[in-house]
Amino acid sequence: MDAATNEAGVIGVLGGMGPLATVDFLRKLVEATPAMRDQEHVPVVVSSIPQVPDRTAAYRGEGESPLPALLASGQRLAAAGAGLVVMPCNTAHLWFDALQRALALPMLHIVDAALDELAALDDRPERVGLLATDATLSSGLYVNRTGAGVQWLLPTADEVARFVEPGIAAVKGGRSEAGRELLRAAAQGLERRGARALVLACTEIPLVLDRDSSELPLVDATAALARAAVRWALGRREAELQAA
Amino acid sequence: MDAATNEAGVIGVLGGMGPLATVDFLRKLVEATPAMRDQEHVPVVVSSIPQVPDRTAAYRGEGESPLPALLASGQRLAAAGAGLVVMPCNTAHLWFDALQRALALPMLHIVDAALDELAALDDRPERVGLLATDATLSSGLYVNRTGAGVQWLLPTADEVARFVEPGIAAVKGGRSEAGRELLRAAAQGLERRGARALVLACTEIPLVLDRDSSELPLVDATAALARAAVRWALGRREAELQAA
Repeated sequence: MDAATNEAGVIGVLGGMGPLATVDFLRKLVEATPAMRDQEHVPVVVSSIPQVPDRTAAYRGEGESPLPALLASGQRLAAAGAGLVVMPCNTAHLWFDALQRALALPMLHIVDAALDELAALDDRPERVGLLATDATLSSGLYVNRTGAGVQWLLPTADEVARFVEPGIAAVKGGRSEAGRELLRAAAQGLERRGARALVLACTEIPLVLDRDSSELPLVDATAALARAAVRWALGRREAELQAA
Repeated sequence: MDAATNEAGVIGVLGGMGPLATVDFLRKLVEATPAMRDQEHVPVVVSSIPQVPDRTAAYRGEGESPLPALLASGQRLAAAGAGLVVMPCNTAHLWFDALQRALALPMLHIVDAALDELAALDDRPERVGLLATDATLSSGLYVNRTGAGVQWLLPTADEVARFVEPGIAAVKGGRSEAGRELLRAAAQGLERRGARALVLACTEIPLVLDRDSSELPLVDATAALARAAVRWALGRREAELQAA
């Protein structure tokens, strides 16, 4: 087997949260891979089972836990031969530790991937705006995982209720333009209060906000996780070649 | 379990040929599904293993058969719980019958899906241009599966060599603009010779040609297969509900 036909290091994508965010993640995996032909791309298996109960509702105590459904979906990936599991859904990472223990497969954490790219920004910004679901914000998923030196700015409760949550729901419901307007309003609030970079920390957000939406440097957590997963797969391919 | 959380009818996508065409197919699955929230979307598992040997080279006798790799990839889907297998790669359908026998899972044929949509076009066109790989064209994959009443027009050997094959390779290599120009030239040749509709019968082609690329009605085989797969999944969900 040469490098091109090597299937070492199959990335498992625990997706469906939402389905379009999974598609966006898969496109970013392809874009993150240096390849001139099909066979040079990295092998991927995906479980996109959108029936996982709503993560934000569960965190608020208003709905059932997504953990059993996440585990069942992850077990589909294990059965399909995944050597790594990544979840293109920030809020689902509230159940990351429990899931990783139960699955017994290596996983990459989306917050680590995003924070690594934030740290690598040129002209490292002092104040960073965080756009994410109510559950991701209020659980401290990002802020508690951050080292010293980042000054976070979060949307206010009013902005979460009026812009962020309805914006994410609009994207999930296929109303992209409405979603874009709402999420742009949330981004503008952060910028007005002094944010000099934005972290897009819900996978629905980069579906409608991009470099053209804001003057500020953006860290797209979806793209950051995709790049980290590709590095893992290429590293496994390299290791396999050296062992051969 | 209500309709929204029902996981009956998991669509298995045998992908990676190429990886970006698989992403396009998955996006078209989402677009073909009437859904206002994540949980209403259909469950999907994907095996995107791009190491499948080149289909056109194999058909020409210039490379190894893709069948063992297709079967191994299909078995990942079976292990992950797929109830149906679809392949967003037209040329791979040269191995459809052998694969279906070996996998023992229901499969939908991309050519049947595309021909159904061609038959449903308003003002059914007399002459239809077929844009596809050398192997799909020369094997008669489409023309031999068509009933009476369709007058096919194919690219000439010169157009295949100068426009179609290099155009598809450019898309696979990430050079979309170059691919678009080449494939548009192939479409123009068909139109000049009298085509009044076009079937985009290689999954790389709709990545760069769309309604804006041609005056003619287009049948996108990728989208047709996605719609057929969603109908299957929604039918399974309905059957499950009635049985409950």
